[in-house]
Amino acid sequence: MSSKIFIFDTTLRDGTQGEGISLSADDKLKIAQKLDQLGVDYIEGGNPGSNGKDIEFFQRVKSLNLKAKLTAFGSTRRKNSIAEHDASLLRIIESGVPAATLVGKAWDFHVHIALQTSLEENLAMIRESFAFLKRHEIEAMYDAEHFFDGYKNNPEYALSALKAAKEGGADWLVLCDTNGGTLPNEIAEIVSRVKQELDMPVGIHTHNDCELAVANTLAAVNAGATQVQGTINGYGERCGNANLCSIIPNLQLKMNYDCLPDDNLKMLTNTARYISEVANVHMPVGQAYVGNAAFAHKGGIHVSAIMKDSKTYEHIQPELVGNKQRVLVSELAGQSNIISKASALGLDVNTNNEKTKQIMDHIKKLEHEGYQFEAADASLELLLRKAFGDWQPAFLVESYKVHTEYKQDSIISEAVVKISIDGQQIYTVAEGNGPVNALDNALRKALSQYYPDIEQVYLTDYKVRVIDETDATAAKVRVLVESTGKQNSWNTVGLSGNVIDASWAAIVDSFHYALLSIQRVSVEQPANSQEYAGLANI
Amino acid sequence: MSSKIFIFDTTLRDGTQGEGISLSADDKLKIAQKLDQLGVDYIEGGNPGSNGKDIEFFQRVKSLNLKAKLTAFGSTRRKNSIAEHDASLLRIIESGVPAATLVGKAWDFHVHIALQTSLEENLAMIRESFAFLKRHEIEAMYDAEHFFDGYKNNPEYALSALKAAKEGGADWLVLCDTNGGTLPNEIAEIVSRVKQELDMPVGIHTHNDCELAVANTLAAVNAGATQVQGTINGYGERCGNANLCSIIPNLQLKMNYDCLPDDNLKMLTNTARYISEVANVHMPVGQAYVGNAAFAHKGGIHVSAIMKDSKTYEHIQPELVGNKQRVLVSELAGQSNIISKASALGLDVNTNNEKTKQIMDHIKKLEHEGYQFEAADASLELLLRKAFGDWQPAFLVESYKVHTEYKQDSIISEAVVKISIDGQQIYTVAEGNGPVNALDNALRKALSQYYPDIEQVYLTDYKVRVIDETDATAAKVRVLVESTGKQNSWNTVGLSGNVIDASWAAIVDSFHYALLSIQRVSVEQPANSQEYAGLANI
Repeated sequence: MSSKIFIFDTTLRDGTQGEGISLSADDKLKIAQKLDQLGVDYIEGGNPGSNGKDIEFFQRVKSLNLKAKLTAFGSTRRKNSIAEHDASLLRIIESGVPAATLVGKAWDFHVHIALQTSLEENLAMIRESFAFLKRHEIEAMYDAEHFFDGYKNNPEYALSALKAAKEGGADWLVLCDTNGGTLPNEIAEIVSRVKQELDMPVGIHTHNDCELAVANTLAAVNAGATQVQGTINGYGERCGNANLCSIIPNLQLKMNYDCLPDDNLKMLTNTARYISEVANVHMPVGQAYVGNAAFAHKGGIHVSAIMKDSKTYEHIQPELVGNKQRVLVSELAGQSNIISKASALGLDVNTNNEKTKQIMDHIKKLEHEGYQFEAADASLELLLRKAFGDWQPAFLVESYKVHTEYKQDSIISEAVVKISIDGQQIYTVAEGNGPVNALDNALRKALSQYYPDIEQVYLTDYKVRVIDETDATAAKVRVLVESTGKQNSWNTVGLSGNVIDASWAAIVDSFHYALLSIQRVSVEQPANSQEYAGLANI
Repeated sequence: MSSKIFIFDTTLRDGTQGEGISLSADDKLKIAQKLDQLGVDYIEGGNPGSNGKDIEFFQRVKSLNLKAKLTAFGSTRRKNSIAEHDASLLRIIESGVPAATLVGKAWDFHVHIALQTSLEENLAMIRESFAFLKRHEIEAMYDAEHFFDGYKNNPEYALSALKAAKEGGADWLVLCDTNGGTLPNEIAEIVSRVKQELDMPVGIHTHNDCELAVANTLAAVNAGATQVQGTINGYGERCGNANLCSIIPNLQLKMNYDCLPDDNLKMLTNTARYISEVANVHMPVGQAYVGNAAFAHKGGIHVSAIMKDSKTYEHIQPELVGNKQRVLVSELAGQSNIISKASALGLDVNTNNEKTKQIMDHIKKLEHEGYQFEAADASLELLLRKAFGDWQPAFLVESYKVHTEYKQDSIISEAVVKISIDGQQIYTVAEGNGPVNALDNALRKALSQYYPDIEQVYLTDYKVRVIDETDATAAKVRVLVESTGKQNSWNTVGLSGNVIDASWAAIVDSFHYALLSIQRVSVEQPANSQEYAGLANI
């Protein structure tokens, strides 16, 4: 029998302290619903005492009927006052949550410097605030701020803060490494001491300033903590909070604890990516467990080994967390990478087959010229489909031109594109914030008459790299473009001696790839037009 | 007395296995030099047996006379062969390195599945390969691949692999958590056992698949490992290698080990950012210690507390690692690097001086907008000189325009530039292989009448980065340009909502910088014209 660890998600509260993270009440509702589907135990929705957006969230979230316990965040009462009159504590009660977390000082230094009150008054603030919450029959958690720094400085005072919360009636003592500076062995030792001194359920809340938040959380669980606080993708102030997307699979798959219900662990990757979309934050490609490269193989030896048995270079089956294996095609890899990619597309690939050999040689030649397919899955797919006679281009390019002009402090880019679809010529012109954006707009305009859904495809990243920069005459430019559609995103590559032409090639590939799954309409039907939501500066 | 931990950097070898990381020989030389300045003990340059680029690197790196020990990577000899005839081992010797690392199997499962040979033959491969290296008097390290997985499956066989390396004469036994699936307590236990069984120097090499690579490395050091292998920014296959930018400060500042010489730790942030620019990879804003947000405070209670004492919400002083505090609402960041830069230029800089404060504020504002001066020294120098009244632009830009056209399989770029020098208007037109090259040519043509030596200045690298790509409307493009003159090279930056305009700004800065040391001639004197030897494709 595995024992239960309670997962406390604070993406919507501590997560929003991260740089560049700003969530509307609508965003927060979407995320709460997704977290609830994943099956976390507690969802900390925000601080109703600090802003109107959070009050709105707590009102609207009720209609979602979440299974998870919703919690509100606040501080212990103000110094030299009484809990019953504390506006922030009253807001927590008004928000109607079944559980609340109060942060309170546990480090004597902070009581003196930040709070500027006496050590005794701080203990009274803690005790009385919890007594207030418990009179309202709310599950109450004490976030013991800077507990580990406090303990290292003055263990008796740090413990007395916990005892004050216990006396007030707190249900959980959550030990916080607020500054993220504590090491795993220190965490283990101090949590053990707390478990010895106080017979209470203990939680752990860590930050990633030493890149140790996950390890610190696991060390605390090993020492007896049964609640884990963290955020999806590790969002949070400075270097972020402990990343639940790493902690949960570590606890379940490696340490045999029980965190999420049933088979929900396989929703983890989708949850992480969905929340990164809502929060509008790029996910690091190499993020543990849920990143796009978490099970991506590039080395030729590695690839040939995983084709024999994926356990050779994968610590878990990616499907357990809803992720999947990817084989990157690169200069470092042998042909095994390409074969596994083509098989995944359902193409009749076979090392003994002459055609397969020709395609390999062709790809090798392209890579030698400077193409890089490892970050351009969609271009590689088009290339393979074409080679196997599995693809016909939906349009042909006849010509394009683009100009950019700066005069009297203003700058303009304009592009003209001529393409043909089934022999029918289409000639469009469009402006853009930059030449590539202008070309993108002009091509989109041309295609949208036949493929209105192309309006939902946007360029979302753009990278330029000069290759062989030492050999100037032979040098080429490689452009990598990321595009995003309704449900997925894909990457394409363009290579040319001219940066505009390389960009154009990458855009053309991106649209070709998008059209694989977009329906064509008769030209009489007018195209929908909507505001452009992608990159507009290139 | 603190004891020494040897830092083994494998950014140039294992780091390049990361998705999207592709380094030219030039890039690798730049990174090697930067790592050497930081003061790492070993720099693994690549695998001379696997590709021509790495052979070129090992040839060219000799002229840099690095203080760090350069190491080459390879595998133990092929099965059923002899070391003396192994092409890969011979290439290591030919590369002329003083040290080498050989990877060899330590997991019986891998010997059967991936290597498809007998357990005994694998031990012979290890033993004989090290004996071969030692006959050539090279410091030899055994990367015991999958050591921890191997040990968990068959401890005796894993230990016998180590013993084979020891018998062959290996100087180091490096225990690898190749799949990144091992937990810190397992690492600690297994490293202790190895230290007990074999009286040998032990290294640790971990991967981040459980977000535990840093913690695993520290656990191994606690258990007796004295060499740490990792990469800058944690680059590497799948979820990356152990991140030296977190490990080094943890070891030095928190655990009192000795890693880098003297005061070099304060170069860490600059090193991390420089290498991310060369590799053209986004640095996560919240990266521990060196990230832009690692010491950033987002308002409210935290900010008021750090203004009383920054220790309240900072686990270390950011300056110890060359980073700085940022307050996201009102910028109050550190200024030491800019001050030292200005002093080096002989400018009258002084923290108590009002003008210095204004300049700092201006630079901070530019950085907030997305400028990045770490990799654009020349732009920063112009900015400082201008602020101190030490520089007058040699020319003014009135207008420019550029167009690119593709028609009937041919592509052309043409630029028109209008500048003035001392009120004299100069109007030129030029073609180029791309729009940026055309602008560069037109501007060069205009300047060369007054400054003939400008013909010897070439653009030698060009990088484009979209910043804030998630926020499409506010997004900007940052262009970094490297230029080379007769004797030196320099870097400039341009930022704009339009990629052409950002490129133009970087080029203009580059020419301004070049003109600081180029003599002006009377216009009657004809300009020398010579073939363009720089980048022509952009």
